[in-house]
Amino acid sequence: MNYVTKAVCVKCGAEHKPTPDLTTCEKCGGILDIRYDYDGIRRALDPLAMKDRTDYSMWRYREFLPIGNCASCGTSVHHSYVPDADRHRLRVGWSPLYKTQRLASELGLKTLYIKDDGINPTASLKDRASAMAIVKAKEAGAKVIACSSTGNAASSLAGNAAAAGMETYIFVPERAPKGKVAQLLVFGAHVISVKGSYEDTFRLSAEAIEEYGWYNRNAAINPYLMEGKKTVAFEIAEQLGWRMPDYVAVSVGDGCTISGVWKGFKDLFETGFIDRLPRLISVQAEGCCPINRAIAEGKGWTPMEENTIADSIAVGVPRNPDKALNAIRESNGVVINVSDDEILSAMRLLGRSYGIFAEPAGATGTAGVKKAVETGLIEHDATVVSLVTGSGLKDVANAMKAAGEPLLIEPDMDLLREKIKA
Amino acid sequence: MNYVTKAVCVKCGAEHKPTPDLTTCEKCGGILDIRYDYDGIRRALDPLAMKDRTDYSMWRYREFLPIGNCASCGTSVHHSYVPDADRHRLRVGWSPLYKTQRLASELGLKTLYIKDDGINPTASLKDRASAMAIVKAKEAGAKVIACSSTGNAASSLAGNAAAAGMETYIFVPERAPKGKVAQLLVFGAHVISVKGSYEDTFRLSAEAIEEYGWYNRNAAINPYLMEGKKTVAFEIAEQLGWRMPDYVAVSVGDGCTISGVWKGFKDLFETGFIDRLPRLISVQAEGCCPINRAIAEGKGWTPMEENTIADSIAVGVPRNPDKALNAIRESNGVVINVSDDEILSAMRLLGRSYGIFAEPAGATGTAGVKKAVETGLIEHDATVVSLVTGSGLKDVANAMKAAGEPLLIEPDMDLLREKIKA
Repeated sequence: MNYVTKAVCVKCGAEHKPTPDLTTCEKCGGILDIRYDYDGIRRALDPLAMKDRTDYSMWRYREFLPIGNCASCGTSVHHSYVPDADRHRLRVGWSPLYKTQRLASELGLKTLYIKDDGINPTASLKDRASAMAIVKAKEAGAKVIACSSTGNAASSLAGNAAAAGMETYIFVPERAPKGKVAQLLVFGAHVISVKGSYEDTFRLSAEAIEEYGWYNRNAAINPYLMEGKKTVAFEIAEQLGWRMPDYVAVSVGDGCTISGVWKGFKDLFETGFIDRLPRLISVQAEGCCPINRAIAEGKGWTPMEENTIADSIAVGVPRNPDKALNAIRESNGVVINVSDDEILSAMRLLGRSYGIFAEPAGATGTAGVKKAVETGLIEHDATVVSLVTGSGLKDVANAMKAAGEPLLIEPDMDLLREKIKA
Repeated sequence: MNYVTKAVCVKCGAEHKPTPDLTTCEKCGGILDIRYDYDGIRRALDPLAMKDRTDYSMWRYREFLPIGNCASCGTSVHHSYVPDADRHRLRVGWSPLYKTQRLASELGLKTLYIKDDGINPTASLKDRASAMAIVKAKEAGAKVIACSSTGNAASSLAGNAAAAGMETYIFVPERAPKGKVAQLLVFGAHVISVKGSYEDTFRLSAEAIEEYGWYNRNAAINPYLMEGKKTVAFEIAEQLGWRMPDYVAVSVGDGCTISGVWKGFKDLFETGFIDRLPRLISVQAEGCCPINRAIAEGKGWTPMEENTIADSIAVGVPRNPDKALNAIRESNGVVINVSDDEILSAMRLLGRSYGIFAEPAGATGTAGVKKAVETGLIEHDATVVSLVTGSGLKDVANAMKAAGEPLLIEPDMDLLREKIKA
């Protein structure tokens, strides 16, 4: 059973049939939002029933997702496409939620949970969106899927597509970090390195997608990707026994992830799985915070430069500002900006207090929590969940900036003894 | 209930009391093997009972492990130490087992499963050993734990110790790759970079461990670490519904991992969980294969140079040859050596056919399976499990060697059209 009813434009309200190849609003170009029959979901599922599910992946919440029923785990009515095989390729989701007592103390906070999404197959939260993209692309009958990106979206798409036997075309600007390009090539993507700016790259990809009819995986264009991302909120809720934390901290770039998190919590609230909603903490880098600035100043967003080491959220012109601004405002959210030094410090904190190795954008949420407690924006006795969105192994250069230096000595026990004493 | 009965030296047979701070045999210096009351385990547990367990981590097999009962999930008799909290820090184990149809076809094999242990918290199988080391170190009352290594053992120890609030001293030779040193430092380890060879480094660490009484985490010295590693075999068996594959392929360096895998299968056989044992495929690099050479020539092992890109298995003087040689022989195993080119090719194969990004040593097992099929060493209709021991994000430099080059072009649709046609 697929409970999707329609797709609604967040700008003009126009309604669209939820075909698998949806992009943006046909009328105004606005971003679409996927809507469900929540009464139907409520009748089909409750928190108690979740206990019996043995599928520990993002697909365990299938009633809340724009997919047909799984042939292996339920009745198969009212659906034309059974994406069972495609959705169970790489194991995406059900990342651990750690209760971090020592880190909470260091931050002066009563209770802090870290949700480590760096543990996903290609080491970032973006796997949730890409796995969904593959299922919808197959449903649409596409053979090829494409996007333009240099980061986690690209590598997650390449990896999940490889697992499903789909071809990918991925457009990157020539300056893309070699490590990420290597990851793409290992996954067998056609990587097109464009001699030009990111804008040039994006334009060329758009022309090619149009001309060749490739399936479009761009989080702010394809509305289904957010439906994948929202599963991280479902997991947080279930892992906490459906008791909501006071705050959920998310690092924000183009705005798709924080919007997805909010959508997930709202879905659960709508169906009675949870009885209250958390407040969002939107954390951006000081050097690139157009969304937080818009909230703080109470007006529309305007572009900014991209001055931060946290490359995954260095987005001066966010692609999904409408949904993100709406999510922060609707949740009565908190916005906070952090410096690169504060991000590096949060990387050390996560590593030293709990063995979690986050990339800069992955540690940004935690940097924001620290600062929000220090500045009194959130209360010491609050319960907070902070989302780590990607692994530090993706960006070893910045990890080294965070990490400091080892003790360098001659192989001599007397010397070592002195150093250890000191 | 802890079912450990004793520790037995694999060289001289001397029996030792299973104290938590065991190292090597007091009589002859041989490596110890932990023994269990298998009748007791059989009475306490069967495959059917496993279905009700919701702990999806390496600790779900607690009866087979040298640990006390978990306070939260069973009766607590005959134990003095409840390591519940320590063992549930980072979520280690229950890595995915993927059935890879396309890869199997490419290799000319009927059925091939890939067990991706790169998905562990610090991105390698070594987390299983380090998580166990932390529990035993705490049980021994140690405050500090130490090892000398430059690779996955070091980073997994540092990460798991950080999560448990333990101090670590990790000795690395000055030449250690900066990325891995950064990982150690992010996890807050005291990293001692020694101006000298690996031998100098090891000696200094041994002196310091002796002098300061630190807990010793060296896989070939501390017999409990293999007990952590064997959980990967338990998972393979359970994920296959307790039906054994014909072969299990493992890349081999110092010999601890393949010995651990074998120990796991033997534990299951001994207790009736499985009714036959698989044959091991021991895969080494051509440039460094002392264990496979000993098997092939039917005599004892002798040291070799360390000429391979697969740094994690570049071990010319294996630390655990006795257990490894025994495991391969006892399983009627197959040995095969692969070139660096074959390893790079296997990295591409895993990435392109299933979105799995392995480090060189992680792809070595699969390189061996490919070659073993090609050379007729194993049958086309065999069922094979190949173990991926670590993530490719750990070694981006070699990934780039495997990956090839992207298509570099001007941002021009006419040019792109031509290139795609070609």
